[in-house]
Order: sequence, then C-alpha cells, then structure tokens
Amino acid sequence: MATVESELLAWLQEHLPKSPRLTVGLGDDAAVLGKFDQSGVVVTTDMLTDGVDFVLSDIDPQQAGHKALGVNLSDLAAMAAQPVAVFVSLVLPRKGSGEISATELAIELYRGMQPLSEQLDIVIAGGDTNTWDGPLAISITAIGETTQQGPLTRSGACVGDQLLVTGQLGGSILGRHLDVEPRVREALLLHERFQLHAAIDISDGLSLDAFRMAEASGLGVLFAPESIPIADAAHQLGKQDGRTPFEHAWSDGEDFELLLAVPPGVADKLLQEQPLEVSLTRIGEMIESAGLWLETDDGPRSVAAEGFQHRGEK
Amino acid sequence: MATVESELLAWLQEHLPKSPRLTVGLGDDAAVLGKFDQSGVVVTTDMLTDGVDFVLSDIDPQQAGHKALGVNLSDLAAMAAQPVAVFVSLVLPRKGSGEISATELAIELYRGMQPLSEQLDIVIAGGDTNTWDGPLAISITAIGETTQQGPLTRSGACVGDQLLVTGQLGGSILGRHLDVEPRVREALLLHERFQLHAAIDISDGLSLDAFRMAEASGLGVLFAPESIPIADAAHQLGKQDGRTPFEHAWSDGEDFELLLAVPPGVADKLLQEQPLEVSLTRIGEMIESAGLWLETDDGPRSVAAEGFQHRGEK
Repeated sequence: MATVESELLAWLQEHLPKSPRLTVGLGDDAAVLGKFDQSGVVVTTDMLTDGVDFVLSDIDPQQAGHKALGVNLSDLAAMAAQPVAVFVSLVLPRKGSGEISATELAIELYRGMQPLSEQLDIVIAGGDTNTWDGPLAISITAIGETTQQGPLTRSGACVGDQLLVTGQLGGSILGRHLDVEPRVREALLLHERFQLHAAIDISDGLSLDAFRMAEASGLGVLFAPESIPIADAAHQLGKQDGRTPFEHAWSDGEDFELLLAVPPGVADKLLQEQPLEVSLTRIGEMIESAGLWLETDDGPRSVAAEGFQHRGEK
Repeated sequence: MATVESELLAWLQEHLPKSPRLTVGLGDDAAVLGKFDQSGVVVTTDMLTDGVDFVLSDIDPQQAGHKALGVNLSDLAAMAAQPVAVFVSLVLPRKGSGEISATELAIELYRGMQPLSEQLDIVIAGGDTNTWDGPLAISITAIGETTQQGPLTRSGACVGDQLLVTGQLGGSILGRHLDVEPRVREALLLHERFQLHAAIDISDGLSLDAFRMAEASGLGVLFAPESIPIADAAHQLGKQDGRTPFEHAWSDGEDFELLLAVPPGVADKLLQEQPLEVSLTRIGEMIESAGLWLETDDGPRSVAAEGFQHRGEK
C-alpha cells in the first residue's frame, strides 16, 4: 500500500537535485555527507508549527516550506557558515490541508524550499515524514561548514565595536516574516573580506537579540536610536495598532537581518563601501556596562530588551 | 519574562555534559562540531509524535525521550556510523502534560535521553524548543561519522550473501518499542572486524525492511522461516490477538534489531564466534529473484512484505 512517506519518497527521488556532497542520499537509513576536510560542521535546527509560525489555512503551503528553510539558513548566516545540506522532518495532518492531501501538502512544502535551496546550492537531503491528527509541524536541521575564517559567534564583541545592521527593521508580520531572505551570501562575503567580531540574526527582535549578543560577549549596547533603520512595514503597522514605528523596529521579531559587531575602523570602511546589495547601517556601539542603553540628550538611558522570547510566545 | 525556551536553556547549560567535539555549543545561533577530518558526516532525522509513536499520558515522559533518541541512533547503527551529537527540536503542549508544566516536560524528555547518550558518549547539543496548542512532537537529528571502513549501506548485498539478524523479533508493542536498545556498539564492532555487505535496522517489520534492503541491492530474499528468532513478547501477544508468533516476528515494527547481509564464509564465522552480547541468527539468504520468498518443502514460495509502512500508519 502506498503511504504518504513512500509516495513522497518517490517524488523526492525524482525532483530533488543530486549533489556530489551527498555520498549516500535519499532512501538509506541515513545520509552521508562528504568532504568536510578541515572545516567545522555547523548545525542548527528549528521547528515551525501551524498556528504559531504561520497560519496554514491563510497561506500558500509553499510559503511555509520557504519560511522553515529560510529561518534555519538565517541561523547559519549568523555563524557565517556555508550551508551544505538540510534535513526535513514533517508531521502532517492526516487529512492534508484544505483541498489537498497530506502527500500533496508535503510536496508543496518541499516545492517551497526549492528556489532558495537552488539559489544557495544546498542539498535538500530529505528526512522523515509522518502523519497524525494534530496540525502541521516542520522541523528542519541545516548543516553547513565553517569557512577558512572559522565560525562567527555571538560572543566575540569588544568594547568600542560598532553595531551594524543589514536592511530595515519592524513590521515583518505584514509579510516579510514569510518571505524570509536569509543573509547567507551577505554574511559569507563580509566574513571573508572584513574583520567581524560577533554576529546574530534578528529573529526575536532587535533589542532582544542585541541583548543576547551583548550578554554572550559580557558587554552592553549603547544604541543611537535615531539611526535604527525602520522598515516601511513598521510605519504601516504603527498606523494600524497605534504603536510607534520605532517600537516595531525595536521589538518586532522575524526581521532575519544580521546584527554585527565590528571594530570602528572596519565599520567606517563598511559604511562607506556598502559592499552588500542590502544597506548596512550603524545603530550603536558595544560598551562595558551590561544591558541596553539609548543615547539621549541627557546621556545614556537604560532600557529593557523587548521582543519575542520565542516566535509566537511573548 | 522567563519562557519555556529560556528556562530549558538554563537547565540544559547546567545539566548537559560538555564535549571537546562541540567547538561552539548551546546558546549560539548554531553549534559547531569539530574534527571530522577524513570521515563522512552521517545524518539521520526522525520525528516522534504523541499518539503515534507513544501515548504520553500512559508513559513516563523520560521513555518518550529515550525512544526518540534510540530510534535515531538505530539508524546510525544501520550505517555502522559512530554517533557524535544529537540535536533536539521539541514542540510541547503549552499546558504541559498531566501534572507537569511544559518546561518540566521538556526537562523530563532530555533526562530520558541522558543514560543512552552517556553510555555511547554522544553530545546532546540542544536544539529548538517551542510550545503550541497541539500535542507533543519530538524531532531529533543525529549526527555521526563514518569509521575507516566507510558507511554500511542497504544496497551492497550480493547473491549468496547470508541474512543475519540480531536478537529476537516480534511483539515490541508490549514494551520493547519504548525501551529501544539501538545496536550501535554491535554494528561498529561487526563492521570493524568482519566483512559486511549491507545492513538495515528493523524499524517497520522484518519482512518490509528485508524487502527494502533487497530492493536497494537489486535482489530478493529467500527466508528460512523456521530459523527466524521469535521474541517471547511475540508469543505473549499471539495469545492475546490470535495471530501466530511467526506473524508477529514477520511483520511487527520497532524491533530495532540489525539485519545484515554478509558473505557465506563470514556468516559461518559470525555464527560460530557469536561476537556480540546479543545473539546473531541466520534467517535466510540473498537471491537473484526479486521480492521475498519462503523456503518450503515444495520449494520457494513468494510472499508479500507486510509491516508498518510507517510507524503507526499501517
């Protein structure tokens, strides 16, 4: 009897591109990835669930697949790792979703992963497929490798480092949270060409993720609040809910932009050169006093980190 | 505000042993594993869900954690890979389970993984923790490395190879399916000392998994049905449901024993030496004719593979 798992395996074997990195691929007990040589193996895992990270009935299932892949790749980007392969575990509602069967839902999720995986030359190495009476959950494990520069951690920031951010922040709930553009290429380019001290991706809100990076480095952050680049969506959302655009940029989650701590000289160069397709903006600096601080006319004012403690779980 | 994820992270940082293989560990955007050198990186992922793979309200949550780890390690065993690290993604019922909170449930799951991970010197490298209104799902990705002998696949069996199995089969639902003993050390020992052609772990039933190995090798299997080692539990279960103990050994899932195809001379040696703490039994041989066959007094009789197409999804 054909099952969701066997039907999906047949589809995957036909549609997923092969890769020389996959020594043993789909259809064995495990996959074997070759040629890591001197690189470190970088691993991250993130599970996304219906009703928390997306509302399946409101979106195209391909968007859920794209987002699940994108958020995992964003974590690899934050380590400045080169993505190699992803493994996908699905638990599907037995009856599928709306008009489509569980197998079709699984295929749509994988289809949603394909553009980004092709663009970044990542092997979707399959995984595990299950059905149940509960809602959809997608668990992805992304595997990358360190480059010659090694991994970029959260903990390497020094006092005086400038805090830079890619793109614009806030209001991602209006759409950007689904259309994640993980900053993989950006991180690799910067890590190769410039001296970076620390990085994190903004998944739970600028203030909370900046706090995490500062804490991991044993430091604090002094923000130049006027400099924080605010997304159009933060303005739009502010009109709807009465919060200021700044508040949205400060605490909304799922921007998936990179927050970087770099030495002052490197910051000057980066801000002048603007080597990325996306903008780089200076928004503050690392200071000795723990916690988060805002520059004001009356001197630094201590502020709390606010944001999603975890996506969907304030 | 403390959340399930931050509370759990604090617990994990205190209770999970460190490892020199983890260059960057818990609390960064991703983990970095070092020293793979010339080894292949072996990756498997398996998601277990409440109501399908276990019934959370009927068991100690530690058993669910143990099982989730065990089934993943069983897949690494089937590749004769040395386990290195596991990554755990949880989605927890927001209200927890029975008397315990979501955080306590997560901790019990991790506690359930500790004995096996310590015994096999595997790093539990954390992962991702979420809550929702749905039931518990546990997704584990296990990462291992190939030994000098390389990976052991499903597809290397040759005509004339003898089919050996570890342990006894059938009736795992009476308890053994929770107390998984992945044959990791057994597989490594055999792969190091003997010439093995192919292997698979019996997760979906002897007949179905034997069929998969045969199909991957482009061959069939001729079983000596009288030789199949039948577990006591298969006899017990047979008394309850009227099926024969053989039927249970033939098609029950979740034995998590190893099925091996080895050259005849190697089989003789293995059966005589019995180098494992668990028994090795010859149950058939690989033949050219595709499919599954039973030896009978009237010659080979073709039989269908029967078993779980996937756990819980007959």
